Amino acid sequence: MAEEVILLDFWPSLFGMRARIALREKGVEFDMREEDLSNKSPLLLKMNPVHKKIPVLIHNGKPVCESLIMVQYIDETWGPESPLLPSDPHERARAKFWADYVDKKIYPALRTIVGEAKEAAKNEYIECLKVLEGELGDKAYFGGERFGYVDVSLIPFYSWFYTLETLANFSIREECPKLVAWAKRCLQRESVAKSLPDQYKLYDFILSSRRRISLNK
Amino acid sequence: MAEEVILLDFWPSLFGMRARIALREKGVEFDMREEDLSNKSPLLLKMNPVHKKIPVLIHNGKPVCESLIMVQYIDETWGPESPLLPSDPHERARAKFWADYVDKKIYPALRTIVGEAKEAAKNEYIECLKVLEGELGDKAYFGGERFGYVDVSLIPFYSWFYTLETLANFSIREECPKLVAWAKRCLQRESVAKSLPDQYKLYDFILSSRRRISLNK
Repeated sequence: MAEEVILLDFWPSLFGMRARIALREKGVEFDMREEDLSNKSPLLLKMNPVHKKIPVLIHNGKPVCESLIMVQYIDETWGPESPLLPSDPHERARAKFWADYVDKKIYPALRTIVGEAKEAAKNEYIECLKVLEGELGDKAYFGGERFGYVDVSLIPFYSWFYTLETLANFSIREECPKLVAWAKRCLQRESVAKSLPDQYKLYDFILSSRRRISLNK
Repeated sequence: MAEEVILLDFWPSLFGMRARIALREKGVEFDMREEDLSNKSPLLLKMNPVHKKIPVLIHNGKPVCESLIMVQYIDETWGPESPLLPSDPHERARAKFWADYVDKKIYPALRTIVGEAKEAAKNEYIECLKVLEGELGDKAYFGGERFGYVDVSLIPFYSWFYTLETLANFSIREECPKLVAWAKRCLQRESVAKSLPDQYKLYDFILSSRRRISLNK
């Protein structure tokens, strides 16, 4: 059966990046459709009527929403020979725990920093990254020797490091050297390199978005 | 091998309830240990050093944290003859989507209502419940004829309905009759009935917690 795989996406999206990486890790061909978030397509509204957000993965006409659920779906559906989640239930739960940590702790702190560059949010962000760095330890990837689920969940945030460091005047690189080394290791994978945007392009985008917002005030 | 299953829990916890229900659905014997959250046990701090929160499932000495991850772990580990998640990847993703919706939309709105009984939060809460009611439709359970993952995720919130209705003066029962009928259906299951606290006991507990907080101000 010919498969149709569409990803409704928006290039700076951390969550979209996760889906792109996972699909590429599995060698799945997909049609990435860039959404205009100020004028969402009828397809997006139809496929994600609850949240109306990207990314949405549409596989043979059926939608899958929410990036971590999407990565799990991709892992279950394609390429069992290159699993993203470990097969042992306890190890699976552990990987899911850290991906959940990224969503619950790292993402909200990033939003606050981008919004207002508050000192407390910076400290919180660094502290949470350090917790993740502790979990990484001296391993190559979060799951050990293989690139996997937690790596997919976290690596998109690396593309935002330059923006955060510049906007909020702090150095993630100095604070979390092991994590930066891990990110560079991940970036050697084609799936990751192809899926993350250029950090300077992202910075320009955020800066011009901020200007637009402040002009509209 | 003799299994040791411990649940570090606190009886009013919505998330603890999920774990209790899932374990009972699978017929797993477990030792529920009530935590004093103002004086957390060394075991809790050791087993969940990141969030230091209940519930924590400890299976043969290894911890599993975060209630939805826990329910998935329980589903993968015990009783394959009575699965909580569907086997089809797309249906699995759909069930996970709705459980995620409960955590992202229903829980924050509940917290705001309990905290301050704001009008906007009430409306948001009812609206989100109605979205879930729409998803339920005329089915017996969220997954169809079988009690499953989304049911486990949402049913604990029913035990808080009385508290919310009384504190915030609104009627979930009138607004969402199908959802209430579903909840009563779920409560006929021993796993659910044994795991949810008495609604009046919960109300008294919340009321006295609020009084304690306001006395301490």
